Parts: sequence; C-alpha cells; structure tokens
Amino acid sequence: MVVLDGKATSAQIRAELAEKVKVLKAEGKKVPHLAAILVGEDGASRTYVNAKVRDCEEVGYGSTLIKLPEETSESELLKAIHKLNNDEDVDGYIVQLPLPNHIDETKVLLAIDPKKDVDGFHPENVGKMTLNLPTYIPATPQGIVEILRRYNVPTEGKDCVVIGRSQIVGSPMSILLSQHNYPGNCTVTLCHSRTKNLRQVCKKADIIVAALGQPGFVTADMVKEGACIIDVGITRVDDSSKKSGFRLLGDVDYNAVATKCSYITPVPGGVGPMTRAALMLNTMKVIELS
Amino acid sequence: MVVLDGKATSAQIRAELAEKVKVLKAEGKKVPHLAAILVGEDGASRTYVNAKVRDCEEVGYGSTLIKLPEETSESELLKAIHKLNNDEDVDGYIVQLPLPNHIDETKVLLAIDPKKDVDGFHPENVGKMTLNLPTYIPATPQGIVEILRRYNVPTEGKDCVVIGRSQIVGSPMSILLSQHNYPGNCTVTLCHSRTKNLRQVCKKADIIVAALGQPGFVTADMVKEGACIIDVGITRVDDSSKKSGFRLLGDVDYNAVATKCSYITPVPGGVGPMTRAALMLNTMKVIELS
Repeated sequence: MVVLDGKATSAQIRAELAEKVKVLKAEGKKVPHLAAILVGEDGASRTYVNAKVRDCEEVGYGSTLIKLPEETSESELLKAIHKLNNDEDVDGYIVQLPLPNHIDETKVLLAIDPKKDVDGFHPENVGKMTLNLPTYIPATPQGIVEILRRYNVPTEGKDCVVIGRSQIVGSPMSILLSQHNYPGNCTVTLCHSRTKNLRQVCKKADIIVAALGQPGFVTADMVKEGACIIDVGITRVDDSSKKSGFRLLGDVDYNAVATKCSYITPVPGGVGPMTRAALMLNTMKVIELS
Repeated sequence: MVVLDGKATSAQIRAELAEKVKVLKAEGKKVPHLAAILVGEDGASRTYVNAKVRDCEEVGYGSTLIKLPEETSESELLKAIHKLNNDEDVDGYIVQLPLPNHIDETKVLLAIDPKKDVDGFHPENVGKMTLNLPTYIPATPQGIVEILRRYNVPTEGKDCVVIGRSQIVGSPMSILLSQHNYPGNCTVTLCHSRTKNLRQVCKKADIIVAALGQPGFVTADMVKEGACIIDVGITRVDDSSKKSGFRLLGDVDYNAVATKCSYITPVPGGVGPMTRAALMLNTMKVIELS
C-alpha cells in the first residue's frame, strides 16, 4: 500500500515553482502575483487565505490580501473585482468562498476576468475544462490529478466512482477522469444523494474519490481489495486536546481502509495540501499561457 | 413498451413555437431569426442545414443561410462570424460542423458570440451547462432531455449508462443527467472506447443512451428488462432500394431490444427530429433570455 503523500508532494511542487520564479527573475521577467479577496470573518476561510499568502511567499510570488468587512455590499465587492481585473500587476486572483448570504456568488464569479480566474470557477474556464481545452482547473480536482500523475497511479480503463457532485470537486473530477488524458480514460460513475446501492457501486470501483463531507463514510466493506482511495473530506470536529480546538476528519475510515487498498490519501496531509499547491500551479500558468 | 416518438413530439414542439411566434407578432415584438453558415459541399451537412431552414419556415422564424465554398479561408469564415455577431437582426446562428480540415474548429467556436450561440458549443455556454446555469444546451442532449420530460420518463435515482464521450452528445448528456434536475438525478456512468466489460455495465442500467455511432451495437443481451433506451446513432448505410440511396441505422438493435424495454427511441424518428426541434427551442430562448 502506498500513501499518496500530499504534504511531501506539495512541498516538491513549491520547490519546483520557486526554481521557476528564480529563472523568471534571472531573465528579468515578471514574477507571478496572486491576489485574494476575503469578505467577512469566517474562521476556516481566514485560515485558507492566510495559507495561500504563505505559499506565495515560499515560492516567491507577489501576493495581495484584500480583506473586506462582512457587511460589504455586492456592488462594493464587484468594484474591488473590477479593480483587480484592470490591475496589470495582478496576474491571477481568487475570491474566497463562501461569501456572506447577501451577496450573489454567481454574479461575483461571472465578474472575474476569465484570464485571471486561477480558481477556474468562471463558466468560460469550466467550459474549457469540459471541452478538454487548456485552462485553469479548480484547485482540488487539479491537485488530485497532479498527485495521481506524480505517483504514476494507473487510471486507463479503470472503474472510478466519484461520491458527491459539487461544482468545485465531484462534478469536475468526474469530467476530468472521463477524458482522453492521463490521468483519465476512466469509466466514471458519479454518485450523489439520490444514488441507490452506493455501497455496492463503490465495492466494484478501482478508484474511489470521496467528496461528500461525511466523516468516515467510506468503510472497509465498501472498498475492493487493491483499490485507489482519494479522500477529499476535510470536516472540522471539536477536539479540546488540540491547540486549534479541532481536528480534521476525512470521508474515509482510514485505518480500516488503508489495509485493503493499493493507494490512499491521508487526512490531513493528502488532498488538502495538493489543493493549495494547485492554486500555485494555476498562478504560474497565467504567466505561461499569456 | 412505449415508443418515444421524436417525429410526433418535435411536430408538437414546432406547433407550440409557431403559436409563440404568432403571439410575438401580435404584440408587435421581434420574431426569432436563425442564421446558419455552411462551408463546403458535404452532403449530410447540406441536408441538415436545409432541414433547419425548413423548420424555421414552419414555425415562422426568420432564417438566413450563408453558403461558403469549400476553399473558404479561416479568416474569411471568421469575418462572416464577426458580421453575424454584429447583425442585430440575427438572434442566433450556427456554424454547421464538420468544417473543412484547413479550418480550426475551436478557433471558430470561440469566435461566436456566446449570446447568439444556439448550438451551445462555446466554452462559456458549455461552462454554464456544467454549472447548471441558464444557457443554450447543445441540440442533441437538449432534445433527449425534452423527450424524456414530455413522456414523463422516471429518471431520479436511476442508473444511467451513456456510451460515447463526444463533446456534442455523450459528455454533455452525462453531465445533464447527473444534475439535480428533472430529467436528471441519475447515477450516470460514462462509457467509452477504454471501458472494460461494457456489456455487463449496460446490463445493469435503467437508462442507456447509446451515442457511439456503431450500427446495432446495443443488443438485447446487453439490456435489462424494463430499461429505457435512447438511441443517438444515425449512421448512413448504402441502400439502393431507397430513393436517397441510403438508410439510417441506429446504435441499437431495435427489433430485439424493443421487446425487452419500457421506453425506446426509434431510428429514424427518435432523437434526430428532437435534435432539430431543440435548435428551434434554443432560438426562441435567445428572445426569452434577452
């Protein structure tokens, strides 16, 4: 059994990107600059955004963090987005989700210049992904594809079950793994809340991508011997023994499942750090595609 | 067993659209105007485009057919597209595919104004479809969804197998039937040339969408008793007994499969006419969405 080590792999990716930045600098070229807009005081969002800024510092990208108060109006946020669209120094940016309820998320995503949309959430980029054209792929699916590639996990002709049809993970994951690529060429079944006999469906899978957000949902009896398990779950559970006051739980019953499978991503240290690394890769891509 | 009669259903749709056109006219409003660009002399393409023009006449839409010679350069075609983008009288238009080899299809599709892209092939529209936002859905998947809806075919929680991952049929079909909609909420497995054990996968399906272009591929032994069969295949086979010199064959062995299933689309007279009707629906949508 091989642990797909997202922590080590993402560190490797950051090291590679830091090298690229050095080369860009040496050639007198522009270094990538990532901006992030954070609206409100959500604790998890703040943690994520701060981590992204730290990643930028580590690889040598420029970074700008724009913090807006919870009560920011939709039009004020759209103004900030418009400014970033026109800021030539900013190569790519993200608007950290979720947004406060009084702001229309779709409207905001549509306002982002697709060329700077390193989260890959704008319809034009989602469409290019669906059509297998060069684009920015949302960070989590991109991170998963990247770790499968770097560990040479075989995917062609494999039966893959994706659990969860969210627009940022499950749905794009099912699209990417179906395509005529490596990683890809899987026979993908996309499962969700309306799926019947989910346990039996999983049991036949060579690859399971669990992205439903239910801690420990995938148990050993649902997993075929030798399957590859990708755990996207990252639920915070109160834990007073931890300094942070919580611990992170995946969607997979790791200890029991790990003994049966060929590959598995741990939580934490699996898909999470790969998601962060994917954002750094996408930001470099802005420079490379332009 | 119910035959999903695309010929009758599409006639019904055209009658409904003709009614809407009458109302628009009575209210002194603009009537939809569809344009089509046809490059070269491909026989099937000419037939399709002529049929689309006839459909426009029947429902009362304006129509313009722009025929360009086989040797048209890419830049000449892009110029014609640019003209249609700026022609206020044309609400929607299509560029009939396939294009001659010397023209880059992706470049052409990207040049079409997404607001006039009634084929739904532009990345922005494909992305909106993937994100379940209002948009133009490619005609064949749209036609299939429409006939499932009009016959009240149950889809929620059903196991659906889509055979073929083309960008105009299989891939969008798998996305649409996975979404939280009716028709939709299926557990979809997207199969293709790399799929192993396709026969066994099909055998378990409640709904099969066959879109691989191999006449008679889906045989009775691959079909579960009571399944719903959607046959997208439309292969021309020489037949000197026909006036046209050919007959159309579907991907399904109709006679044998029909005895086992709950619903089935015939070829011809199933998905084909629904595809044409869907283009008429999309053209009306331009007026309704604007």
